[in-house]
Amino acid sequence: MRKHTDKPQLASKLVLRRVAIDTYRENVAYLHRDCAVYRAEGFQALSKVEVRANGRHILATLNVVDDPNIVACNELGLSEDAFAQMAVIDGQPASVSQAEPPQSIGALRRKLAGERLGREDFLGIVRDIAELHYSKIELSAFVVATNRDELDREEVYFLTEAMVASGRTLNWHEPLVVDKHCIGGIPGNRSSMLVVPIVAAHGLLCPKTSSRAITSPAGTADTMEVLAKVELPVDQLADIVRTHRGCLAWGGAAHLSPADDVLISVERPLAIDSPGQMVASILSKKIAAGSTHLVLDIPIGPSAKVRSMPEAQRLRRLFEYVAGRMHLSLDVVVTDGRQPIGNGIGPVLEARDVMRVLENDPRAPNDLRQKSLRLAGRLIEFDPDVRGGDGFAIARDILDSGRALAKMNAIIAAQGAKPFDHNHPQLGALTFDICASESGVVTGIDNLQVARIARLAGAPKVIGAGIDLFHKLGEAVTSGEVLYRVHAGFQSDLDFARQACAKSTGYTLGRAEDVPHVFTEF
Amino acid sequence: MRKHTDKPQLASKLVLRRVAIDTYRENVAYLHRDCAVYRAEGFQALSKVEVRANGRHILATLNVVDDPNIVACNELGLSEDAFAQMAVIDGQPASVSQAEPPQSIGALRRKLAGERLGREDFLGIVRDIAELHYSKIELSAFVVATNRDELDREEVYFLTEAMVASGRTLNWHEPLVVDKHCIGGIPGNRSSMLVVPIVAAHGLLCPKTSSRAITSPAGTADTMEVLAKVELPVDQLADIVRTHRGCLAWGGAAHLSPADDVLISVERPLAIDSPGQMVASILSKKIAAGSTHLVLDIPIGPSAKVRSMPEAQRLRRLFEYVAGRMHLSLDVVVTDGRQPIGNGIGPVLEARDVMRVLENDPRAPNDLRQKSLRLAGRLIEFDPDVRGGDGFAIARDILDSGRALAKMNAIIAAQGAKPFDHNHPQLGALTFDICASESGVVTGIDNLQVARIARLAGAPKVIGAGIDLFHKLGEAVTSGEVLYRVHAGFQSDLDFARQACAKSTGYTLGRAEDVPHVFTEF
Repeated sequence: MRKHTDKPQLASKLVLRRVAIDTYRENVAYLHRDCAVYRAEGFQALSKVEVRANGRHILATLNVVDDPNIVACNELGLSEDAFAQMAVIDGQPASVSQAEPPQSIGALRRKLAGERLGREDFLGIVRDIAELHYSKIELSAFVVATNRDELDREEVYFLTEAMVASGRTLNWHEPLVVDKHCIGGIPGNRSSMLVVPIVAAHGLLCPKTSSRAITSPAGTADTMEVLAKVELPVDQLADIVRTHRGCLAWGGAAHLSPADDVLISVERPLAIDSPGQMVASILSKKIAAGSTHLVLDIPIGPSAKVRSMPEAQRLRRLFEYVAGRMHLSLDVVVTDGRQPIGNGIGPVLEARDVMRVLENDPRAPNDLRQKSLRLAGRLIEFDPDVRGGDGFAIARDILDSGRALAKMNAIIAAQGAKPFDHNHPQLGALTFDICASESGVVTGIDNLQVARIARLAGAPKVIGAGIDLFHKLGEAVTSGEVLYRVHAGFQSDLDFARQACAKSTGYTLGRAEDVPHVFTEF
Repeated sequence: MRKHTDKPQLASKLVLRRVAIDTYRENVAYLHRDCAVYRAEGFQALSKVEVRANGRHILATLNVVDDPNIVACNELGLSEDAFAQMAVIDGQPASVSQAEPPQSIGALRRKLAGERLGREDFLGIVRDIAELHYSKIELSAFVVATNRDELDREEVYFLTEAMVASGRTLNWHEPLVVDKHCIGGIPGNRSSMLVVPIVAAHGLLCPKTSSRAITSPAGTADTMEVLAKVELPVDQLADIVRTHRGCLAWGGAAHLSPADDVLISVERPLAIDSPGQMVASILSKKIAAGSTHLVLDIPIGPSAKVRSMPEAQRLRRLFEYVAGRMHLSLDVVVTDGRQPIGNGIGPVLEARDVMRVLENDPRAPNDLRQKSLRLAGRLIEFDPDVRGGDGFAIARDILDSGRALAKMNAIIAAQGAKPFDHNHPQLGALTFDICASESGVVTGIDNLQVARIARLAGAPKVIGAGIDLFHKLGEAVTSGEVLYRVHAGFQSDLDFARQACAKSTGYTLGRAEDVPHVFTEF
């Protein structure tokens, strides 16, 4: 790429102008076609430019304007988000020049050529990604070139380390900071909302930050938001954690491993979720959040992310290798991922399930309770005063005694409670039922298909939308019996969900001996 | 991705508006944040939308606007290029909906997962690429996932075939339509401008279309444009070819293998030029242009694209395999790529060299003459009436007799001659000389570095800019003697070139026995 020095004698004549166009995460700069700078620099539309003003500088994609009502010849327009980043007012002087290519582009090209990269390479690449110096093209190239087995485990370690270094790191000044994480893919799997109050009630420090749904019908942050505020300033979050030993907040505001969010914006449309990227993404977030001990949940099943035990063990070893290099104590548990966990899928429905478990309500889904107790038990065993094998019973006592519920209510109050009554949850008022077309035993529930139906019904955006499962794997049903109910907030959403159900309900019925088995630790 | 049906009751209320913003190849649609359709559809900024009007439909990236002067609530704004594609006037009714993901996205994901793709997969992917249905993210993913050795030779064949099918195919209705092509990377290598008039003078049909420079200081189209118009309507081009048996035109307007141009827009910033993509790109263009017989030039040398004979042979076999499947007669020649061909680098300088060879001027660079004669000779041997081995002598007779010059002048006149005097070429007036720092023999000329210097000096945009080489490989120079002269049109360009020369002149001097040898066919 051609290099340009700044030409201040020309550039200083430009003044900044906010252009009221929202281009989301992509900064756009607007120059009039007759602008002297545009002509002198030989810019091209869509080329990357560097904008300087107010002692700050950002990179932006150039759009060329022919309408002086949008920008005049002496103006440099910026899209809303870009304008906000400059922290100036309209009319301030600004300069613009061709952007240099990101410094790490050489390392990226070596990776594209199939080379192994070193620590400094990953630091440079991830820094450029976090600072939004990469174009969409370069980002996708990095994601695809590090896909599948393109990264060896040492490289995954370097990538993880670089992702931690790209953002803020929290330090809780305690020797034991615990967390749990699931690699995802199982609808309704809200065990974090039970594990956190249980282990916090035991006294462990558990500052849990979660994501919102990316491709699923609800993330932990979406479900917790039904009960309490989850977008909290980092300082307030730290106070809550110090007071209550735990929190359940959205992690997006904390600037932890920010490169991860940028990479996800590319991985998602490509449906790429490779082992190396998964390990770096999860572990970097946990380490940046100050965790010292982590229980990691890998569900396996025919429609889970991981479909066999050998695959799960391979992934486990990679997690363990990187965690070891990063001095994070890690317990990996392989769990039953053959079907959704709990009954509800969607923010309100899942919040209902969680509160029923905490209240020891007889309608509480037992699979969610059991899984949460076992995960909490594993976390409690990180406590040096707890004997191996005793964790589960301790967790159960905490739950059964109501101490977990009390802790959850304290956390909800501290974060800012919202009105919620699990006996009368505000579900989407438009519904239809999917019924058994024959009598038999439920032999399969496709995680991907029920997640898709719940999303089409409006979850997580419409918080009361989703699916309520009436029967789970191994249960006998008679012809015409309701398998699940779909809730939606809007007629069009209901119609989309119904069309998807018509293609496939996600349920298969058969004989009891056809129910697939998985051999998991619990 | 979520599917939406059209909602005409809402959509019909929108009217189209041209927004005078040039977003180059990326279509952008602008909706006001308070627009009912925007709110009802749950669009997100930067999401892909499908715009329908006037019986046409295009895909565009959505930007959300807060300024009614840009678009009002009842308007659907389109960037200039997008507006032009709809072929309507302001105020026409239009509808907008969430874009469906490209149909071939499943095949792309399978390739990302490491699978081998079939003929139908490539047809679908390449069609979506040619119709601009892929986002930058998806495009880069495809380019990287088919990089290096990710495509086997059958897949390269499928890709080539799909690229031909994605655009127009010319049919000259003659059994023998010849062409030559070089894989690139050697500055000054303008043999096409000599080969075409020679073989056309022999009577072979040679409808040569060329590209402009992408990363080089001049493409054949840039250099030919010094002498004649190169952007011609396809019909006019066909008339010229039928009358004169040849042409030298820019291929961009002919819609030949259009997916190739889209892919190049991503390959270029990533500096990706893998064997599979190179073969598919070159052969698809030639076959779409109606060629039946092709001579392909693979230069090898320390700073050429191909650096060793085994690598050249591997590439040759891939070209031959795919050409065979596509029923294209192919002769691959491996040539000396150790240094630039000819003396001039840059459009005017190269045009000067070409015209001197055609005029049998004693100042003509002999390497350009010899290489062109040998390539023309190989093409002439495609003529069934020519005995193997006789081509060179026939080509030399055509050149020496002035028949090649006459043919070139006829082609120039037909395409639209421009004033050019090779005795007084209009070179960039600002110059500096690079001189030998010691006495010795030229033992190396770095193709990449001299190309970089010529580009910094302004080529190909400033047509008189570039480099004039005074000494080539193996020539003895004395300390202080001029190695080459840099020409520029602007002081800033001259300064950029000078800075690059200060880092490295591209020349190495040493002893006669240090000149590297390459073993090539000629």
